[in-house]
Amino acid sequence: MRQTRSVPELVERARKGEARAVARLISLVEDASPLLREVMAGLAPYTGNAQIVGITGAPGVGKSTSTSALVSQLRATGKRVGVLAVDPSSPFSGGALLGDRVRMQEHATDPEVYIRSMASRGHLGGLAWSTPQALRVLDAAGCDVVLVETVGVGQSEVEIAGLADTTLVLLAPGMGDGIQAAKAGILEIGDIYVINKADRDGADQVRRELRNTLALARDAEDENSWHPPIVKTVAQTGQGVDEVVERLDKHRTWLESTGELARRRIGRARDEIESIAVTALRKRWGDVHARTELDVLAEQVAAGETDPYRAADSLLETYTD
Amino acid sequence: MRQTRSVPELVERARKGEARAVARLISLVEDASPLLREVMAGLAPYTGNAQIVGITGAPGVGKSTSTSALVSQLRATGKRVGVLAVDPSSPFSGGALLGDRVRMQEHATDPEVYIRSMASRGHLGGLAWSTPQALRVLDAAGCDVVLVETVGVGQSEVEIAGLADTTLVLLAPGMGDGIQAAKAGILEIGDIYVINKADRDGADQVRRELRNTLALARDAEDENSWHPPIVKTVAQTGQGVDEVVERLDKHRTWLESTGELARRRIGRARDEIESIAVTALRKRWGDVHARTELDVLAEQVAAGETDPYRAADSLLETYTD
Repeated sequence: MRQTRSVPELVERARKGEARAVARLISLVEDASPLLREVMAGLAPYTGNAQIVGITGAPGVGKSTSTSALVSQLRATGKRVGVLAVDPSSPFSGGALLGDRVRMQEHATDPEVYIRSMASRGHLGGLAWSTPQALRVLDAAGCDVVLVETVGVGQSEVEIAGLADTTLVLLAPGMGDGIQAAKAGILEIGDIYVINKADRDGADQVRRELRNTLALARDAEDENSWHPPIVKTVAQTGQGVDEVVERLDKHRTWLESTGELARRRIGRARDEIESIAVTALRKRWGDVHARTELDVLAEQVAAGETDPYRAADSLLETYTD
Repeated sequence: MRQTRSVPELVERARKGEARAVARLISLVEDASPLLREVMAGLAPYTGNAQIVGITGAPGVGKSTSTSALVSQLRATGKRVGVLAVDPSSPFSGGALLGDRVRMQEHATDPEVYIRSMASRGHLGGLAWSTPQALRVLDAAGCDVVLVETVGVGQSEVEIAGLADTTLVLLAPGMGDGIQAAKAGILEIGDIYVINKADRDGADQVRRELRNTLALARDAEDENSWHPPIVKTVAQTGQGVDEVVERLDKHRTWLESTGELARRRIGRARDEIESIAVTALRKRWGDVHARTELDVLAEQVAAGETDPYRAADSLLETYTD
């Protein structure tokens, strides 16, 4: 039987590094528990330490192998690590250990590593609304670095950058990645580029193309700008992964010294607050048992009696100052 | 020089079938002109006639050829037709004639056909926020049927069903479409399924698989349910396209007789009103020159002084009853 614990107790245990308390808090987030507000309030004072690292790349570049290799390397430098794997295509959630991902299992028994997969229940194909809140749990639990990885493909590849302090973009030779990457817009979001499977033919060509594309995209910059480095790795053997970790550290230092870290985090907090407020308003507009103002207005618009703009005005007049 | 006309005059001319007035109104929508509210108010009384038909399918199934063949067939039955091609991947907009799409050019000089391409500026990869408003223009201009087609791939394939009265899902043999379609969720959204390129090997197999999948997906239904038909076409030659048009008519009759048309349209109007209201609120929260309440709250959340839920409460208290 699952023990019931109070939220403050769970937060306290999570901060001490109890994996089960961390897992329980993430479950509360994921299930949109009525305790969610209390959880968030309890965590707030302990957040802000972790470096949130987004890992993106087309399927086949070796994202999950790279994530696992990064965990090993980060652990070797003594860091506490969280891994959040978001699967936008899966209707199933939970599962603390990503049992299907053999590579991750080597970390499963390490008490300084928290690994969690989440289904995305948010917008079609988008990252779960609950992702930023799960990140807060891992952050408050004392992780120094949290790796966020999307499983599968799609928009979330770009969205993930919006959640991260540092975004790693993975490429690999022989996949036509240059073009794919440009299409998906991921060439605008990388803080660090990793060419994985660098022992294969074509790695240098990918590097050349990438360098050219990045050079083209570069605006006139001041000397404080961050120049995204390109690192070659073979995640299977761990080759080059130490350099990725070094670059992560450098990027964090850069973020802090330039004030960019605060800017990014305030921007993210803005989005999060706004999205919670909008959700609350939508609920207020549409969630009453009787026919709502919105229902009536929608019928009028559908009948051509009014237009959506006037209807929106009415809605706002009813519910706001 | 572009003639300036008042909105009421433009609406009047569009209703009479002047292609240039229709094009101008869509441009006002697409450019989010300050006249937009006046345009929507002017169009409202004349909307509600057109059957909005969404056309979806993976790249390569022959969407644009099918759209063109449908236009021909609909014209043969004397209908006025609008075509809206939404390109979520293009940063460029406008262009009344889809110059690159040779197939469409045969309709370019037909005064009873309006063809328009729009870039999607909306949510990443999503359909343009302006799409429903452009549909209102074509509806008010007296189109009996408006075909909405997405160019490119992605989420919009599913989103398009949310805008349409009737959704056509296109498949073709030899593309592994069965699996692709199921993945993209398009098997839940089709009102009519079209197997194009039906002269190729494998068409019957696609039909069989599709029929099985649809049968599995079918819940216990009452006799008023719509059973999505499967039609085989060769859009290149026009074969089978007459049957698609017959099915479109039948679906419209079904929609009207069951009250489903009204339900779908009221649902869409709800979404549209809500989205305009939310946009207005977001602007109010974030658009002031001084530091806004939201800025202050975001800084507090980023600093761990409060949590996003309490911040959202404050925001709503400030701006709503």
